[in-house]
Amino acid sequence: MRVIVIGGTGTIGSAVVSALAARHEVVTVGHRKGMHQVDLASPDSITALFKAVGTCDAVISTAGSAKFGSFDDLTYDDYFVGLKNKLMGQANLVRIGKAFVTNHGSFTLTSGVLSREPMKGSASISMVNAGLEGFVRAAALELPRGLRVNVVSPPWVTETLIARGMDPSIGIPADKVAHSYLASLEGTMTGQTIGPRQRGA
Amino acid sequence: MRVIVIGGTGTIGSAVVSALAARHEVVTVGHRKGMHQVDLASPDSITALFKAVGTCDAVISTAGSAKFGSFDDLTYDDYFVGLKNKLMGQANLVRIGKAFVTNHGSFTLTSGVLSREPMKGSASISMVNAGLEGFVRAAALELPRGLRVNVVSPPWVTETLIARGMDPSIGIPADKVAHSYLASLEGTMTGQTIGPRQRGA
Repeated sequence: MRVIVIGGTGTIGSAVVSALAARHEVVTVGHRKGMHQVDLASPDSITALFKAVGTCDAVISTAGSAKFGSFDDLTYDDYFVGLKNKLMGQANLVRIGKAFVTNHGSFTLTSGVLSREPMKGSASISMVNAGLEGFVRAAALELPRGLRVNVVSPPWVTETLIARGMDPSIGIPADKVAHSYLASLEGTMTGQTIGPRQRGA
Repeated sequence: MRVIVIGGTGTIGSAVVSALAARHEVVTVGHRKGMHQVDLASPDSITALFKAVGTCDAVISTAGSAKFGSFDDLTYDDYFVGLKNKLMGQANLVRIGKAFVTNHGSFTLTSGVLSREPMKGSASISMVNAGLEGFVRAAALELPRGLRVNVVSPPWVTETLIARGMDPSIGIPADKVAHSYLASLEGTMTGQTIGPRQRGA
């Protein structure tokens, strides 16, 4: 398959690209790096990306930013960073991208463990991640031509924890997390949130 | 307790007001009716409401709009109606209102069954409802002075189904749905999504 990986230059994204490379054609997209660039917060930038890349069989996103900050410090505008970028940016990959994906193709987006396991400082991120999961459950019902959409809710990634000076023992290595994206891409599920918290739910 | 009910003139809200009236002082707030008015999409309007009402012991919201429409028809701006009104409007009731609520007071917001049981046309509403539930899980961790926040995810309400000409047999009467708001108000839980889908989860 020809697969666009948006965020493919990041920690999880580059692990996904490595996992895909052996048996798929990968188009790596970053915010500033990669074969193509996109600004997720801009619908026009997303449209330009799909026009530049052309038809593909699947879209994977491991991209999107949202503000972490204490409940007292997060401003109204801070919430809209996440709503416009990680939430509506990834929703727009499906809304705009569906015209560019072949029959029975798929979209795989990224939320995160803070959706179900919040922590102090995560009010905006938990909102965005959970909202994305709700969107995916609904959008899956209306996609045409056998298209599918799922969202991976990654756990804390070991490499990220080390980079931030946090305890890496609670993390999962990025190459293990990449398996969830392959399960969405190569499987048949749709409308699902794929992540450790969902295994037993 | 002195309880502000925002949306208290609507179908669920008026049932909540009736259930509260016997043992609480209720301040009914509507978009155009009620003792006070508020535009949920406007942070300034919410601030003005709390200044006008003054200190209270609890805030209940059964308000908030979001666009229903087919995945192909919903525009980018349509999504922002729900993000600004039902989602950030209710988040702002907590963000702004926490300065006006007495120690150990509570906020009870409203999402909806489409968060977990989507249908065709609900992509925006499912996003908003799920996002609100994620927000509440996280915000509960950081509220000061023993304040609590929960969200009720109401099922389809019988009166609403009848008003829309839909099959009322799948609905729950509004006066039964009101019990969930009383459970949040008078109980001790926080960070919870209260609704039929959560009973067995």
